[in-house]
Amino acid sequence: MQRSAGRVAKRVLAQAAGATQVAAPAPGSTSPNHPGAAAGLVRQLSALPWSPPVSIDSINPKVIKTEYAVRGEIVSRAQLLQQELSSKASSLPFSEIVSLNIGNPQSLGQQPVTFFREVLALCDYPALLEKDESHALFSSDAIARAYRIVESIPGRATGAYSHSQGIKAIREEIAAGIAARDGFPANADDIFLTDGASPGVHMMMQMLISSEQDGILCPIPQYPLYSASIALHGGTLVPYYLNESSGWGLEISELKQQLDAARASGTRVRALVVINPGNPTGQVLTEQNQREVVQFCRDEGLLLLADEVYQENIYEETKTFHSFKKVARSMGFFDKDLSLVSYHSVSKGYYGECGKRGGYMEVTGLDAEVRDQLYKVASVNLCSNITGQILMSLVMNPPKPGDESYDNFTKERDGILSSLARRAQLMTDAMNKLEGVTCNKAEGAMYVFPRLNLPERAMKAAAAVQMLPDVFYARRLLDATGIVVVPGSGFGQVPGTHHFRCTILPQEGKLPDVIAKFTQFHERFMEEFRD
Amino acid sequence: MQRSAGRVAKRVLAQAAGATQVAAPAPGSTSPNHPGAAAGLVRQLSALPWSPPVSIDSINPKVIKTEYAVRGEIVSRAQLLQQELSSKASSLPFSEIVSLNIGNPQSLGQQPVTFFREVLALCDYPALLEKDESHALFSSDAIARAYRIVESIPGRATGAYSHSQGIKAIREEIAAGIAARDGFPANADDIFLTDGASPGVHMMMQMLISSEQDGILCPIPQYPLYSASIALHGGTLVPYYLNESSGWGLEISELKQQLDAARASGTRVRALVVINPGNPTGQVLTEQNQREVVQFCRDEGLLLLADEVYQENIYEETKTFHSFKKVARSMGFFDKDLSLVSYHSVSKGYYGECGKRGGYMEVTGLDAEVRDQLYKVASVNLCSNITGQILMSLVMNPPKPGDESYDNFTKERDGILSSLARRAQLMTDAMNKLEGVTCNKAEGAMYVFPRLNLPERAMKAAAAVQMLPDVFYARRLLDATGIVVVPGSGFGQVPGTHHFRCTILPQEGKLPDVIAKFTQFHERFMEEFRD
Repeated sequence: MQRSAGRVAKRVLAQAAGATQVAAPAPGSTSPNHPGAAAGLVRQLSALPWSPPVSIDSINPKVIKTEYAVRGEIVSRAQLLQQELSSKASSLPFSEIVSLNIGNPQSLGQQPVTFFREVLALCDYPALLEKDESHALFSSDAIARAYRIVESIPGRATGAYSHSQGIKAIREEIAAGIAARDGFPANADDIFLTDGASPGVHMMMQMLISSEQDGILCPIPQYPLYSASIALHGGTLVPYYLNESSGWGLEISELKQQLDAARASGTRVRALVVINPGNPTGQVLTEQNQREVVQFCRDEGLLLLADEVYQENIYEETKTFHSFKKVARSMGFFDKDLSLVSYHSVSKGYYGECGKRGGYMEVTGLDAEVRDQLYKVASVNLCSNITGQILMSLVMNPPKPGDESYDNFTKERDGILSSLARRAQLMTDAMNKLEGVTCNKAEGAMYVFPRLNLPERAMKAAAAVQMLPDVFYARRLLDATGIVVVPGSGFGQVPGTHHFRCTILPQEGKLPDVIAKFTQFHERFMEEFRD
Repeated sequence: MQRSAGRVAKRVLAQAAGATQVAAPAPGSTSPNHPGAAAGLVRQLSALPWSPPVSIDSINPKVIKTEYAVRGEIVSRAQLLQQELSSKASSLPFSEIVSLNIGNPQSLGQQPVTFFREVLALCDYPALLEKDESHALFSSDAIARAYRIVESIPGRATGAYSHSQGIKAIREEIAAGIAARDGFPANADDIFLTDGASPGVHMMMQMLISSEQDGILCPIPQYPLYSASIALHGGTLVPYYLNESSGWGLEISELKQQLDAARASGTRVRALVVINPGNPTGQVLTEQNQREVVQFCRDEGLLLLADEVYQENIYEETKTFHSFKKVARSMGFFDKDLSLVSYHSVSKGYYGECGKRGGYMEVTGLDAEVRDQLYKVASVNLCSNITGQILMSLVMNPPKPGDESYDNFTKERDGILSSLARRAQLMTDAMNKLEGVTCNKAEGAMYVFPRLNLPERAMKAAAAVQMLPDVFYARRLLDATGIVVVPGSGFGQVPGTHHFRCTILPQEGKLPDVIAKFTQFHERFMEEFRD
């Protein structure tokens, strides 16, 4: 007890000292004596009990400020309800939690793509490659692919740290996949493999943000990884609003207005984030629109951060994915003309391998010295996980016609994508049938982001329990049905409007039931609160 | 061109504006008009070419300040030499690069533990669990374990994001392993699974560091993850020196002196980092010493960050690993008495699965509100990779007597550990035979950290090419032999002393040759520079 009181006394004294930097004395140098004047204070405080040295008041305020609604309060409550369901199933008005808060397809029953998993298994246990019995269990092209991958890893060391950007041969495979996708060359040295796309976003924010004077232009609504990463690094999110009435259109005039306003107020705007296909909005940009965005970044001296993780998830027949790199190159902008980072991931697409944490960023048009710094930051964490690296290369180079797996692979891929397209339509239609709800079509990605026109009485009821109206709605939905969605306030929305994000991912056999429950809830909610 | 000139003009004007926060106008609100006075400036600047918007002068200075020598300049040079070797092998005085800069056992030929890889392969491709043919390829306990793991994942979804702390059943397995190791209970809710140990260290630094006023007590020499993470988060590293002359002893008097000095100069010291077994020093703390450290943290109000990733790597027969948690509990300190974070990883031990990026931190004695914040930070990155999570559970619960794999597992584990013990001795002895070199025994971990007493002429030669003496030595070693070590300056050392870190990881068949080359280099170096 006396010692812990001494600690408090010392803190008080230390605070009084006031300086901010430690001149570190090496052994042998003299250290300052402990002031004798503390003795009285020590005695006064001697009855204090131990308390944890880290408290909510003493941690980094940037951490406290950070919000991440995709796993926020509604999800925490869902976890509690899940525990309740497990212990006494009949206590709640529903029998299961349906997690539509996050794009996590395999958690809702989507099966992994066979070829990908065959190759991963073989790479995890390369002894299988030498055994005849393996031919009864694995397709021949999976064996050949795994063999090639294992051979391409220095020392065949599938359990070693790789180069900090990822295994060279894997990066070459990915670069070849990008080149085939775009029709323009890609360079393995530009690829940084990451544990999912998120760490790549953090790395760039860490590079760009020195203080709150540094701003990042982000769409509103946005995937809250961006707002969270900007908050953690202490920067300023400069919002630009997508136009809901034109199908979440990205308008250059809005970009320009927000950029100018930010600059006029002293913010050094460093980069523009574009999410295409959009999250949470599901819009797919036209090529013409993308050209305008590229030109805007070039003219305004902005780094373009292109979140393209949903590039394979397009459901609208009239729409096509174009990478920003392809668009820029086709405009005649190369490394010396535009700074561009493109993010991709194994978590989305038709494969939905969220738990494997594979991803990459392709970094082009950055200054060599800045690239060196980026490499250094990557190297502090040594490398991303090798399984995720391998899977990323498979995604970028799937089976080709003539390969044994090709037919089965195509069937699995097309089955998932066509089902997702049907589900996008079903979900959009279901939302638009709800009273007071309007919903743009999910042209791509994995979500709908319907707008709720809530009755005045619902708004008042929310205010009475000190909740935002969209949180109030999502909370009511969860408590009544077990369905978990994310309130629009977690993504940002035009002030005074209310939305929620809901994935389109329940399997088709279950979707009608989910929609029926949702509809029933909504009707009752409106009944209860209709003005 | 005109547009890019416009950008520059706007920046100049924006800088003049001076404010730091953006008041984000929503659509429909008015935005400031663009000042007409810019027109003349635009014309003046119209000849400026495009330059990348991000330059070394405009990135976060914390990034530039960060150093990570384990993959620093010597390693970059080694990568260049590797490329040279690949293109024209005879151009260099050696035929291969021997990477002793990093604890990466499988890159030097160590084979993965069979049982672990069997289970991972089965979990990656769970269809194998249903097939009779699998029994010809996998041991029965690997099949049983994989079956149990897959069943324990909600929805059997091996490709889904997990809970942000990791799959609950995996955390329970790890907690059981900790309890069995320590003889004190462990709680699954205290476990945060991470992609290797590094992200867990970053998370804690992010929580603890608000400004450079926040200090972290770190050993010198230290594993540079700590200095890098503190630099990236803008904190102050408060060094305490390990005593080389007493086998890298950790002395409480030194801790106390440095803590008091830091506090006196206004630093708010938040936590104490202890690496046991030591990296780069290889020392293994005695239990008595650990008790003193625990008491010190409790008395001084410090969070104890215990890096225990080398807990299975102990080569000195008289030494045993004790976790800090066990030591604290055996002193009667529980959750309400001490704040403690223990780090572990799949990268080290006898398994050396660096590329799998599995790890955990066990967080005890933290305030509930602080824990919630930690969960939030973890959730921003969704979860660590599932393969790494599974592997971490296998490490904490390996085959038991009676399991089919047990004999082979034991043979593999003991083979690796006894070989490492022999190599630790061989390497220590070899270093001590070198003129002007003294080297404490590597009691544990994977490194020796010999002290170089360099001739005055070598120091002058280093100064003449503007290199630190230890960098000069490591560079000469690399250029002459292809052997890559890390200069001691990358870990910190008592000013005026010089060291290098060198792994003990070359396979036994190769080690004598590596030692011979090293010895020959050193003799020639001393010959060249002897005073």
